[in-house]
Amino acid sequence: MDTIQSLGYNVYFNDSLTELVNFIQQGKYSKVFILSDDQTSNCCLPAVTERLDGVTPYDLIEISSGEANKTIDFCIGVWKMLIDFGADRHSLLINVGGGVVTDLGGFVASTFKRGFDFVNVPTTLLSQVDASVGGKTGVDLDSIKNIIGTFTQPKAVFVHPGFLETLPERQVRSGLAEMLKHGLIDDEAYWDELKNSDLSVPNPELVFKSVVIKNKIVLDDPLEKGRRKCLNFGHTIGHAVETFSLDNDGDHLTHGEAIAIGMICEGWLSVQKAGLKQEELEEIISVLTRVYPKYHLDDSCYTVLNSLMKKDKKNEGDNINCTLISKIGACAINQICTEDELCESLKFYASLNF
Amino acid sequence: MDTIQSLGYNVYFNDSLTELVNFIQQGKYSKVFILSDDQTSNCCLPAVTERLDGVTPYDLIEISSGEANKTIDFCIGVWKMLIDFGADRHSLLINVGGGVVTDLGGFVASTFKRGFDFVNVPTTLLSQVDASVGGKTGVDLDSIKNIIGTFTQPKAVFVHPGFLETLPERQVRSGLAEMLKHGLIDDEAYWDELKNSDLSVPNPELVFKSVVIKNKIVLDDPLEKGRRKCLNFGHTIGHAVETFSLDNDGDHLTHGEAIAIGMICEGWLSVQKAGLKQEELEEIISVLTRVYPKYHLDDSCYTVLNSLMKKDKKNEGDNINCTLISKIGACAINQICTEDELCESLKFYASLNF
Ligand SMILES: NC(=O)c1ccc[n+]([C@@H]2O[C@H](COP(=O)([O-])OP(=O)(O)OC[C@H]3O[C@@H](n4cnc5c(N)ncnc54)[C@H](O)[C@@H]3O)[C@@H](O)[C@H]2O)c1
Ligand SMILES: NC(=O)c1ccc[n+]([C@@H]2O[C@H](COP(=O)([O-])OP(=O)(O)OC[C@H]3O[C@@H](n4cnc5c(N)ncnc54)[C@H](O)[C@@H]3O)[C@@H](O)[C@H]2O)c1
Ligand SMILES: [Zn+2]
Ligand SMILES: [Zn+2]
Repeated sequence: MDTIQSLGYNVYFNDSLTELVNFIQQGKYSKVFILSDDQTSNCCLPAVTERLDGVTPYDLIEISSGEANKTIDFCIGVWKMLIDFGADRHSLLINVGGGVVTDLGGFVASTFKRGFDFVNVPTTLLSQVDASVGGKTGVDLDSIKNIIGTFTQPKAVFVHPGFLETLPERQVRSGLAEMLKHGLIDDEAYWDELKNSDLSVPNPELVFKSVVIKNKIVLDDPLEKGRRKCLNFGHTIGHAVETFSLDNDGDHLTHGEAIAIGMICEGWLSVQKAGLKQEELEEIISVLTRVYPKYHLDDSCYTVLNSLMKKDKKNEGDNINCTLISKIGACAINQICTEDELCESLKFYASLNF
Repeated sequence: MDTIQSLGYNVYFNDSLTELVNFIQQGKYSKVFILSDDQTSNCCLPAVTERLDGVTPYDLIEISSGEANKTIDFCIGVWKMLIDFGADRHSLLINVGGGVVTDLGGFVASTFKRGFDFVNVPTTLLSQVDASVGGKTGVDLDSIKNIIGTFTQPKAVFVHPGFLETLPERQVRSGLAEMLKHGLIDDEAYWDELKNSDLSVPNPELVFKSVVIKNKIVLDDPLEKGRRKCLNFGHTIGHAVETFSLDNDGDHLTHGEAIAIGMICEGWLSVQKAGLKQEELEEIISVLTRVYPKYHLDDSCYTVLNSLMKKDKKNEGDNINCTLISKIGACAINQICTEDELCESLKFYASLNF
């Protein structure tokens, strides 16, 4: 697993915590801050701080864990702590956590004093395979996901597979959805490899391959003007389902669980509109339903889901713009879907027995 | 007065509201929003909307006027309105107002859905000469000025001198401080021209010359890594005085009034540390005191001012980094000043009789 070169920065896979130390030693930062959440503070932070002790002084900032806290209010709290700690434009923020910490920390750093350096140490499978490249930062507002954010690249990303050992099974499944998506939109051979693997334990080699695929797509289209939209497969419906679950379920869906539902629905739409073969859809459904339990959708939720999709940031004007796949391994962007079509696809999901 | 080319966008001076209409007609925007404050809604917005009616539909968003409202809370309000109005990444925001509207509107647009287009229609002298080029957006937090923001360029700026007719005298003086600063840091001939002009009414030719100077400096150093720091002359102390006044005075100082105080103090520091001649300082003081009334500083405020300066975003670590001038028309960046020196300069200002 080589170091991956992304948009002006490196993603380290081998002995990456040593690389983090090297990075800091070369960096001449005025101050170093570490952001974590109440979970990663326990299970991941010690491995980082034990390397940094004696190398650099640092201040710790902790947020509450969970998507519900990826908000502007938490940003305000972190900005205020940075003010109190005397952060300046020559400081460094190290984000140690899953996508919530890296997204929020990236946004905070990209806007504090008009931007200072940050690096990511992703500790979930999802953040390692997906949030580690792409330069998207963001937080939610009024439970609209990532509605406020910037495109800002970290100065480096350090992927340490060891962190995944403490990750709960549902979080592993969450990251897996993005890996499966990478196969579906771009690489049939990778999809086949995943399909035939034990998907219950994260595999560093497969993580690396996923990052290679995502990175290739991102380098092609850094600001999401065209090609990069392929990464949105499963996400138009998935995001709406995720928000819906966050608003309605005590034990809400993870991002990947919602995306898996989105990929089944948008897979069905792909058959209707983009040339995906029925047997390919069946293969996709068989792999996804092997990993992800059924989520109950009843008639009352379709209206809510549709209005959530309309607020989704990938839309242009009044149309709902989806990314579909034309076959396993190839995607079809800018597929305009009507409310009815989206609703039908949700009903298709609801009709499946598994 | 030609159109000025700034960082990837134009600043229009001639018949600029017609240029705004042209810009929108060429833009193919999905939606158009106009942000103004409760003052500019009355005195400036009608001139804009009467041009746009029949050209494009638009939605109006209004914030309360005044620096005290340049906050994250108002950003949240504007973001929520954009969500409700269905703004997307292909929308356009037109900021019609002074620096408060253009700074806040720029920040809102640069972070909503990770950024959509905005243009500025600056309606104060200050925002025409200063905020119209440079790409700085930002809002205040805990009364620390511009602590949250981005570097994002507008897509165009439209300077319409007619707006200045309704501008109160104190606001004219506020903008004038930046014009005088442009002369002091970069152009002795321009300083002489200003010195010999009637400074009580804004002069479009002089506005244009100021923007030319600022633009030259900004193009040299878009991200404020070095040269551009010269624009901070008067601002280390000026920002602290401005914040202090905002916190303590019912009828607080304008930005320019505070910067004028800062320029006298930092002029004095320039004599002590950067080679400015005593007679140049006297000339600067004579021009500034002709325009700006004395502000009362007593012994109790020096500690507060010093702690405000330490929080200023131009500092690197523990030092207070000032921009001074080595002569009229030439600046000296990265002058490290101690607390004592800054305090002495404030006492020098307090000792002046005018
Ligand atoms: N920026 C991007 O490109 C991008 C890409 C995908 C997802 N995201 C965002 O990422 C977020 C989801 O990321 P996530 O799934 O990592 O969520 P998360 O950060 O909430 O992590 C999930 C849970 O696992 C805990 N955790 C983290 N690391 C752990 C470890 N090593 N062991 C045990 N527990 C651990 C966390 O504390 C949290 O409770 C969403 O907000 C999504 O929008 C961003
Ligand atoms: N982005 C930059 O590069 C930059 C540069 C300089 C200053 N600024 C910022 O700009 C702000 C100050 O700008 P400002 O002085 O324009 O303040 P402002 O926007 O508060 O305007 C001053 C007052 O004048 C009113 N007003 C505006 N136009 C008017 C008109 N044509 N007629 C009558 N009244 C009018 C406003 O409603 C307000 O009450 C500060 O927050 C400062 O930080 C930014
Ligand atoms: Zn995703
Ligand atoms: Zn200024």
